[in-house]
Parts: sequence; C-alpha cells; structure tokens
Amino acid sequence: MTAPSPRRSGGRAARQALRAAAPAEDQRSVRPGMSGGVYKPLSPEGIERIHQTALAALEEIGLADAPPSGIEYLTAAGAILGDDGRIRFPRALVEDMLAKANREITLFARDPRHDMTLSGARVHYGTAGAAVHMVDVKGRNYRESTVQDLHDAARITDVLDNIHFLQRPMVCRDITDNMEMDLNTVYATVSGTMKHIGTSFTEPHHVPPAFEMLHMIAGGEDKWRERPFMSNSNCFVVPPMKFATESCLVMEECIRGGMPVLLLSAGMAGATTPSTVAGAIAQSCAECLAGLVYVNAVKPGHPAIFGTWPFGLDLRTGAMSIGSAEQALLTAGCAQMHQFYGVPGGAAAGASDSKLPDMQAGWEQMCTNVTAGLAGVNMVYEAAGMHASLLGFCHESLILGDDLIGHAQRVVRGIEVDDVTLALDQIRSVCLEGPGHYLGTEQTLARMQSDYVYPALGDRMSPKEWAEKGKPDLIEKAIARKEEILAERSRARFNPVLDAEIRRKFNIHLTAG
Amino acid sequence: MTAPSPRRSGGRAARQALRAAAPAEDQRSVRPGMSGGVYKPLSPEGIERIHQTALAALEEIGLADAPPSGIEYLTAAGAILGDDGRIRFPRALVEDMLAKANREITLFARDPRHDMTLSGARVHYGTAGAAVHMVDVKGRNYRESTVQDLHDAARITDVLDNIHFLQRPMVCRDITDNMEMDLNTVYATVSGTMKHIGTSFTEPHHVPPAFEMLHMIAGGEDKWRERPFMSNSNCFVVPPMKFATESCLVMEECIRGGMPVLLLSAGMAGATTPSTVAGAIAQSCAECLAGLVYVNAVKPGHPAIFGTWPFGLDLRTGAMSIGSAEQALLTAGCAQMHQFYGVPGGAAAGASDSKLPDMQAGWEQMCTNVTAGLAGVNMVYEAAGMHASLLGFCHESLILGDDLIGHAQRVVRGIEVDDVTLALDQIRSVCLEGPGHYLGTEQTLARMQSDYVYPALGDRMSPKEWAEKGKPDLIEKAIARKEEILAERSRARFNPVLDAEIRRKFNIHLTAG
Repeated sequence: MTAPSPRRSGGRAARQALRAAAPAEDQRSVRPGMSGGVYKPLSPEGIERIHQTALAALEEIGLADAPPSGIEYLTAAGAILGDDGRIRFPRALVEDMLAKANREITLFARDPRHDMTLSGARVHYGTAGAAVHMVDVKGRNYRESTVQDLHDAARITDVLDNIHFLQRPMVCRDITDNMEMDLNTVYATVSGTMKHIGTSFTEPHHVPPAFEMLHMIAGGEDKWRERPFMSNSNCFVVPPMKFATESCLVMEECIRGGMPVLLLSAGMAGATTPSTVAGAIAQSCAECLAGLVYVNAVKPGHPAIFGTWPFGLDLRTGAMSIGSAEQALLTAGCAQMHQFYGVPGGAAAGASDSKLPDMQAGWEQMCTNVTAGLAGVNMVYEAAGMHASLLGFCHESLILGDDLIGHAQRVVRGIEVDDVTLALDQIRSVCLEGPGHYLGTEQTLARMQSDYVYPALGDRMSPKEWAEKGKPDLIEKAIARKEEILAERSRARFNPVLDAEIRRKFNIHLTAG
Repeated sequence: MTAPSPRRSGGRAARQALRAAAPAEDQRSVRPGMSGGVYKPLSPEGIERIHQTALAALEEIGLADAPPSGIEYLTAAGAILGDDGRIRFPRALVEDMLAKANREITLFARDPRHDMTLSGARVHYGTAGAAVHMVDVKGRNYRESTVQDLHDAARITDVLDNIHFLQRPMVCRDITDNMEMDLNTVYATVSGTMKHIGTSFTEPHHVPPAFEMLHMIAGGEDKWRERPFMSNSNCFVVPPMKFATESCLVMEECIRGGMPVLLLSAGMAGATTPSTVAGAIAQSCAECLAGLVYVNAVKPGHPAIFGTWPFGLDLRTGAMSIGSAEQALLTAGCAQMHQFYGVPGGAAAGASDSKLPDMQAGWEQMCTNVTAGLAGVNMVYEAAGMHASLLGFCHESLILGDDLIGHAQRVVRGIEVDDVTLALDQIRSVCLEGPGHYLGTEQTLARMQSDYVYPALGDRMSPKEWAEKGKPDLIEKAIARKEEILAERSRARFNPVLDAEIRRKFNIHLTAG
C-alpha cells in the first residue's frame, strides 16, 4: 500500500496550480465544429416520408413569384413554368441539383483560426436575426437598436469563445436610408470581429457597393474571393411556397460576387407552414430544395447553406414563439434532413420569448440550443442574445449565452468510453490501496481542463460563500463584463489608412475611434 | 376554389373559443410516463464496456462495510466474503439476480390517477434531495428549511401537472429529534399531496412507527401493502464501493414492510467516483448492481429503482456541480444503462448551482432535464426547485419548474410523422386554393391543444404589450402563484377523525388546519 499524500491539501494545491494556468487552445474541452447527431427525433422512415412530401410539393404545387431571371435560370435547368405562374420541379431535377450542390463548405473569417467547415453533423453557434430593439437590462426597457449596438455586439462576439460567428442580429434603426443601413451594417460588423459574419442585403443594388467595401477590407477582389469572410442571409422564399422576388435578385448578385448564401425559409408553424412539426419541416425542405436548385442553376457548387428555419407559433394568439418546446423539435428534425441531403444546414435555436435574461430565457435558450447541437445543426443561428420572440437583442444575454452554449457544447461532445475513461485500475487502486477518494489522483488532475467546462459568469459558490461575497447578481456580472469588453481596444478595427479610405467612399455612421 | 372565411377574424374567434375551454385530460399534449430514449450518448459497445467494467469491479474489488445481516443475505445468495471484509460478486450471481429483479414496477399514489408505471424509457419528473435551506427569493436570502416548508412543497407539487411525484426535497431543520423528523416528514408530505411520495429514513428503528402511521392513513396494513404510496430513498452505498451500514438496515426494514426502495448511489465524479463520465457511470452501475443483488437476496422481485446518481463536481474547487454540463452526460448515460439492464431506473437532473431562480438556473435546469427525458430516465429526481448544488430549495422555482418540465416533456414526446402531420393536402389547398396561410384551417385548430405546450407563467407577449401590462416580472408571478396555491384548501389533507388519531399517537409539528 503506497502512502497517500495528505488528504485534501495536496490535491487542492495541485488543482489550484493547474487552475492558475489557462488551458492551451488544444486542451480546451469544447470547440467550434464538434460533431453532434446522436439525438435523432426522426426515424429513417420519417425522414424518407418528409423527403417524399417535399418532392411531391415541389412537383405538384411548386413555387410562385420567381423573378424573370430566376424563371430563366430554373426553366433552363429543367423546372417547368405553369400557366398559373408557378414553377414546378420534377423529382429528377431536384436529385440532379442535390448531386451538384457543394457538400462541404468553409465559411471564412478574417482571422483564419475562426474559419468554420460545415459538413456532416459539425456544430457551430452564433447570432442572427433582425431585432429592432435593444434590451436595456438595467432599466428593464426596450429601445430602438442602433449601429453602435450592432458594432458592440460584434465586439462582444469577438471575445466570446463559444459564439463562433456573428450574423447580424439587429437592424440599425438610426440609419433611415436602406442603402446606407446595409453598408454601415457591413462596416459595423466587420470592424468589430475577426470571426465570420453574416449580413442580409435589402435590395439587389446595395450589393455591388458592399462588395466594393469588402474588396477594400480584404485587400482586393482576388483576396476577397479567395477567403470570403461574409455570407448573405437570403429570405429567398415567402412561405408557403412563394419566391421572395427581390431577395432572389439579391441572391443572384451575391452568387456573382462570390459570397456564400444562406437559403433561409422562415415559415411559422400554424401560420405560414402547417401547424404540425412534420408538416412544417416538409414544407421548409421543399422550399429550401427549390432554393438549392436555384443556386446551382446560377452557379453549380456555389456555397449555400440549407436554411430550414421553421418557427414555432403560439396558436392561441398567432404570435411567434421561438422559445417554445415545439421549436426544439422543428430545429432538430431539420438537422436530420440536412444530414439526409448531405448539404450544410442551418436552423434557428437559442432565442427566447422572454423580454429579459431571466429564468425563462435560460430554459428556453438551453432547450433549443442543446437539442440543436445534439441533432447536429451545422449553423445554429439566433443562438445567443435574442429575446422577445426575435424582436429584442441583449448584449448581457449574449455574454451569458457564452456560458450557456459552452454547456451545450460539452453535452454535444458526448461520452468517451475507453480503458482510460472506464478507469477500472483507478477504482481498484483508490478502493483497495489508496486514499478512498479520487480528488488528488493524477487522472483526476489530468482531466480537469480537458474534460470539464467551467462557467465564466455562472455561479457555483455555496450559500455561505455567496453571502460573504455580497450575493453577486448574474445580470450585474454580465453588465460589468460587457463594460470591460467594450473598454478594450478591438483587434478587428481597420488600420487608419484603410479606415480613412472607406470613410471617404462611404457615409460611415460610427465615429472614427 | 372554396371561399375562404374572413382572413383573421374567423380564425382568431375560433382560436379564442377553443382557448377558453381547457383541454380534457386525454387531450393534453404532455403527460407523465411518455417514452424517451431517442437520445443515446453511449454506443452499444460503450454500454457493453461499462457493463463489463462494473462486473469486473464487483468481482475483483467488491464492497466493504455490509452489516452482518447483509453479509448473511449476500453470502447465502452466492456472494463471497473476503478476508479484507469486502463482499465480492461473481458475474453469474449478478446475472441471476438481474433475472429475478422486478422489471416493471408501479409507484402508487393515494389518488390512482397519479400512479406511475416504471418500465422501458418512460419518463417521470419530480422533486428530491435533502436541502437544508429554503430560498427566500424576495429577500435574496437563504434560511433553514422547516416542516411547514416541506408541507408547502407537497401542496404546490400536488397542483402542478408536470411535477409527477414528490420525493422529500428538504429536511425539517426545526425538528431536532431525528425520529420525530422522520415521522413528521411522512405526515407533512402525505397530507400535502395525493401524488407518490419518496422519503428517506435516517435510522432503522424509525421505520416501524412510520409504517404504523402509513397503515392508519391507508386504512390498514393490507390496504397499504396493496398500494404503497410511499417509497424510500436508500443511500445504501458510500462511494467508492462501500455499503452504508445503517442505510442497508433501513432498506431491509422497508423491504419487510412492503415499501419500494430507491437504490441510491450518489457518487461525485472526481471525488468519490473517477472524474471521467464513463468511469463514474461504471462505478455507479457496479454499486447499484450490488444493491440490486442485496434487495433480491432479501426478497426476490421487491420493487427497487436502480438509482445511479453520479454527480458532477467542479474539479477546481472540489465543490459539487449539479448544474454542470457533465451532469447531463452522467445522467443520460445512466439512463441507457438502466434500459440495458431492463430495470426501472432513476437519476438526478434539473437542479441548479445558482442560488436564485435566475437565467443560470433556467439553463442548468433545462439542460439536464431535457437530456434526461430524451435519454428516457424513468424517474428524474431533483427535477424542480433545487438550487445551490442541492443545498437550497425554492417554492417559486418549483412552480417555474412546472413550465420548464412541460417544455422538456414536449420535446420528449417527439415528432409524429404520418399522412395527417405531413399535411401535403393542406399545403396544396392553402397554396393553390386557400387563403395563403394556415391560421384558420381546421387542421391547425384541431392541433392547438393536443400538439402544443403553453407556459403557465412564461411570457410570450410583444415588448409593446409587455410594457402596457406593467412589465410583469417572472419571479413576482411565481410568488403570486405560490400564494394562490397555498391559500386553497388541499385535497390531500386527512379527514378530521384520522388526523386526530394520528396526532394522538405522534407528535405532529404542523398545526392542525
């Protein structure tokens, strides 16, 4: 029997020493792109039936309202324009286009360490949306969102490990001209984070000047095309089964400029899709398949994300309910369809109906985020900061979302089973020879960083310690962290020469820093 | 083309009419005992390896500290007492006893509508624990828990649809005598709810008088034995791999009296089990298999719940972390082992490390509750109300937990795929003939209650409506609901004759109402 080291002090000292050293990047217990997919709410038969329903809907019902250019692309590819103006998609065309589609895409970032490879069931979490309000947590107030709020969201996202990309979560309500708003959205986001960015252009003619700015930032069009660090979220469809004419034209512009597109079908179950989860997924798949045919008819293999985003609805009131339990099923089921089609996919999760970052927000955000991750959604959009059924964005909630998503990711990572983790030798030695506990064992210390996720702001103190420390409040801590982040100098800001050049060409609303 | 009814008014009026009528019990979208099991974090090979590790641990390491009676039962059954005082279990003995074990048990309730059948992956949520504090949410304060608090928890549980059982969540700190505490725990819980109750006796000689009280309540020993509405939570093991001598004797008393037992192994990963998820599950399984052999050696087929409850730990501090992401994996992995063994199982989920019902509490409680449900834990213990890593119980959080668990259950229920839910005909009619939306369709209205879960206190208002209504606060709403519940007369209280009789025989601390 070997002499055990002193019971607690030895282990505690060693743990505290290890704790002082932040884990190296490759030692972190969670990271972007971990594979989910172990949670499968749909059976293989269910998946096949949804697919067949989508094909039937495309063949028999088709989509209305394609723009003339879209009609040209689609009919040239083999779609059929009916007398009723609807474009119908023969099954073989859909299958052909699925074969041509890009099955593994990289969403680049200005800092290559944040590049995201979308394939299989690899999971990434980020913001998204078009909130019109900012949540002022201190004042319990909703106010109009501004370009400064958007820039701050980008800056906060940039330093949060578990927020992997920034898709524009809110609109700049202080910029009334739509063209200026779109261009300032590009500026405010790109100058705030080195991570991949998603935006959403409102009009086709806004796209060329945006490319001009992006080329300047990238250091030339060739550099941009090599590593496009921005994608466009295209609400190319108005469910049920109508193309969004303008958005389709925006999409064509983005494809021409080498910008990846998110084919976003944002139906609402019970309003613009059937009220059933299966029906909502089937219609969303039909719509996104139509979008996929469209993209690949314009340019085969152009990077596109299959964006089935059916939303939940409160059927009693007709109001959107993104924090609902049904939302978790809608999104998880969509993930299985993405994997069935073998194309990169995205869906909405992690948003709350609650007005504030309260307990309801916590349970709603976690329910959809953890199930989306376990189902293997490649791009989990709206994953942090989003409140009031997508109407309000909250910086403090975004910061807390980093802890929440860290948790979800640890669950996605799953359970490793091998001789080392099964630990029979360790059990034997602790029980038969050792100190009777595992606290100070080498194996425990070795796994302290690599296996465990620790919250940054979440509290694990005992009631006694908590009281002694003045009963710290979660929201107060998030406010303090926000102020700390925004007081730092951002690594994403442009060099002064470039910044001056951009400001000469465009009316930039953010003041030069 | 059929004439659609007026666009919104018709649908809204119909929805509001439906909303006014509460759904009949069989129309509710979620209910106790729905089957989970679609989330499988362990592969079949992983399960087999954990099982083999548990068998090896039982055969090679065994358990110390069995009481003399336990040694007798176990060695008579075929276990081997070593010179080191440890009892080792040959593999064949474990397999034999698994074959004798009760594979489907019913946990009865005073009201038969609340009986729970434990088998397969059927999921039930309830309270549990031994908190020593009550959380005073208004004062942001922790105070000692009392018998009145326990009774109130029972009364609140009784009216919450999604809290399916009440296992004693806190100890009555105002009763210093342990025997009196145990007997008053029985009184305070049974007189507060008609649902199944779990308790935990501290000493073997407390059990016979408790049975005396239970027989009185049931209307005789035969009536009690026919439908025992209380089970005992036995921490029969002190991990790693030692029997808890006293608790084993309590368990023997319970078995004799016909009370179902929960074989509770409450290890802490990194302290009293290996720090790895797989190792913690393996050791817990070994311990619970030893318990199962014990129970079935005393009385073959006695109802016992396989209670692998490995807890998470914050390895930096050595403090328990029940709200951790690792906890979700520990519990979900255990569910798969229960299903592998084919015995009713329980594990811990739904508790928080946070001191208050805040956003952290929401995300922690949901993360473990929804994954436990999806993994198919028969008895999800600690599922509501529990804070501060099990040290504090909170009535308001229990009430909010009802909403939270309703969500989790809706996710557990999953996605139905059939011709009706796929809704191709509906899509066709809405797109080609109808109003272009699904709000007023017969199919949408028909599913309004049966498919959707609506929160009782969770808020889905728009920011505008929320502001107009005075910005209602979630916690304030929970406080008001608590006061409303406790102001009602409880259906569970005893008739005055029985109550007087109990009070003559026992020193009941709750004042007669």
